[in-house]
Amino acid sequence: ASFLLVMEGLLRSSLFLCLLSLSNGGIAEIFTVFAKTPMKDEKTGEMKDKITAFIVERSFGGVTHGPPEKKMGIKASNTAEVYFENVRVPAECVLGDVGGGFKVAMNILNNGRFGMAAALSGTMKGVIAKAVDHAASRTQFGNKIHNYGAIQEKMARMAMLQYVTESMAYMVSGNMDSGATEFQIEAAISKIFASEAAWLVTDECIQVMGGMGFMKDAGVERVLRDLRIFRIFEGTNDILRLFVALNGFQNAGNQLKSLQKALKNPLGNAGVLVSEITKRAKRKAGLGTGLTLQGTVHPELNHSGELTVKAIEQFGAVIEELLLKHGKRIIDEQFVLKRVADCAIDLYAMVVVLSRASRSLSQGHPSAQHEKMLCETWCTEVSV
Amino acid sequence: ASFLLVMEGLLRSSLFLCLLSLSNGGIAEIFTVFAKTPMKDEKTGEMKDKITAFIVERSFGGVTHGPPEKKMGIKASNTAEVYFENVRVPAECVLGDVGGGFKVAMNILNNGRFGMAAALSGTMKGVIAKAVDHAASRTQFGNKIHNYGAIQEKMARMAMLQYVTESMAYMVSGNMDSGATEFQIEAAISKIFASEAAWLVTDECIQVMGGMGFMKDAGVERVLRDLRIFRIFEGTNDILRLFVALNGFQNAGNQLKSLQKALKNPLGNAGVLVSEITKRAKRKAGLGTGLTLQGTVHPELNHSGELTVKAIEQFGAVIEELLLKHGKRIIDEQFVLKRVADCAIDLYAMVVVLSRASRSLSQGHPSAQHEKMLCETWCTEVSV
Repeated sequence: ASFLLVMEGLLRSSLFLCLLSLSNGGIAEIFTVFAKTPMKDEKTGEMKDKITAFIVERSFGGVTHGPPEKKMGIKASNTAEVYFENVRVPAECVLGDVGGGFKVAMNILNNGRFGMAAALSGTMKGVIAKAVDHAASRTQFGNKIHNYGAIQEKMARMAMLQYVTESMAYMVSGNMDSGATEFQIEAAISKIFASEAAWLVTDECIQVMGGMGFMKDAGVERVLRDLRIFRIFEGTNDILRLFVALNGFQNAGNQLKSLQKALKNPLGNAGVLVSEITKRAKRKAGLGTGLTLQGTVHPELNHSGELTVKAIEQFGAVIEELLLKHGKRIIDEQFVLKRVADCAIDLYAMVVVLSRASRSLSQGHPSAQHEKMLCETWCTEVSV
Repeated sequence: ASFLLVMEGLLRSSLFLCLLSLSNGGIAEIFTVFAKTPMKDEKTGEMKDKITAFIVERSFGGVTHGPPEKKMGIKASNTAEVYFENVRVPAECVLGDVGGGFKVAMNILNNGRFGMAAALSGTMKGVIAKAVDHAASRTQFGNKIHNYGAIQEKMARMAMLQYVTESMAYMVSGNMDSGATEFQIEAAISKIFASEAAWLVTDECIQVMGGMGFMKDAGVERVLRDLRIFRIFEGTNDILRLFVALNGFQNAGNQLKSLQKALKNPLGNAGVLVSEITKRAKRKAGLGTGLTLQGTVHPELNHSGELTVKAIEQFGAVIEELLLKHGKRIIDEQFVLKRVADCAIDLYAMVVVLSRASRSLSQGHPSAQHEKMLCETWCTEVSV
């Protein structure tokens, strides 16, 4: 078999490409390693470093690791630095193409994110159950604390965040089951939303339990510590927000581009222009773009559907304005991008709860009226 | 000397009054104990349990304790259950009056809260320094990360929260130095604000540091764990919000009462009524109540001063509406009370930063222009 000889110098530099510390670094036998490899640029003939993905087995020799890192949480996972020195990697251990490692990495990350909403919905359910148990049994000022409005509001918000997160998990996995392959943005949104919702819900559970929640015995502080890394790993939520926003702009930009093209040849593109002009005129007159969810959402949720349509239309108008104002430089306007991403996340959350609550109402689920309330509360609060 | 014999039965019940677990319970030699003591009601002659505060020394005998509790943070503090069995407490160890323990407890709590803003400003300074160090040296996508807008926004918000918290510490302690004795609401507000600001700032520091922030070696995750209890102890922030809101309503209620009295004898109270009617008419016409901070705040901060006055006037109008709507039942409207407290906290924060930034501008401090920016940003964002 042919071998790809990975030299010492190359491997040293590859360390900077690997995560600084690897999950299960101290116990894993097989690693996915991303390293820069020198490649000839086919156009210019110059040598350039490109990323390649390799399967590296500990048994190849030259793989060592440091002591397990001490962390805030996820202590059941062994995290350690891994060192590679003069490791010979067989050519058949290249994942995908030589130089095509970036695509492999993105595929791994895109695939890793979608499950987080499902996993964290479960975590939230457990934490909410603990908070409910405590609130139903703890007496303060002569009353069980679940009777107080401040506690009731907390519980309602916790339930709502859990419902939205779970609905995202259903939506993404449902789309994947029906064969969708382009779900990166939805997966990123679910990852951001789920990791932040689970953090808030668990933090509130501790607050409901008071001093007891701070004790190890209650078992909630461990969940909070474990959860802290979810906003960081698989792409930090900050980077993912940029990803969500810029992808949105790319789509909007492409639409605008075809509009700009149409403007250069107005006769040949009368159709595009007429529909665009009508859309803009309607928007200016406050009439909406004709988009409607009536007939799609359950009639009992028509009001939430209208709120969603209105929000989507406003969002579209703002995106267009931003693109016209900043053009390609929008990529550097992170203050703006963060807000665009937050809006996109809220909108997606509206759509998923509308979809799920509609289904429950149509199928007459026993929880349907409760879901309706969660959906309406979410859509109303987000629209404000 | 005379002794107050504390019987076993009484002490058992007193356990429920003590905190479930006491700070330094395993090592303390002297305890402040709050226990119910039977007292004759002077009006009815009936016996009734009232709270009395005692100084109890371990050397009195009968004081034992459980093992140190395992907690999320503040591990340098020994927290343990303390048991009292047949402890004889000399009469001179009663703090204040027999039956007057509630007042003693409130005084202790009111005095414990004011320092938290000062202590946590320092914590925040340290954490911000760590985040800045990291952002200035860490390279991602070919650039030091402090060059990215998303990181810059985080830093700006962290600095702003630290500035507001520190300004509250200065204001409360300044007032105390000038002899103020009624600072309970301000102390409660500072406690709420400081504990939440420090939590957010430390959480963002971890986010800026990414995976490294999650490691024990970085020393930030410990700060976050330590901080979690600050939103719970010395009165949970939820209870303190009710305290802040209800105190505000009490004041507003008293003013309304004198107005109601005046309405019953309109001729004898013409002055009160005329000024009230003018105030209301002005407010309805959007003219404001004549309150102004011009001349008080530095001219460069006039705009922030106007925003503050406007917010205070709106707040006053809403409080009055709420009181007229709910009357005494407002005490049970915790959903409303929480929001009233949040507004009061924001308003107080506006006033303290206006005061501090004005002083720095007038005295020509080197940081004055920077403080002006922090003050303006706070006042603008809070007014939206």
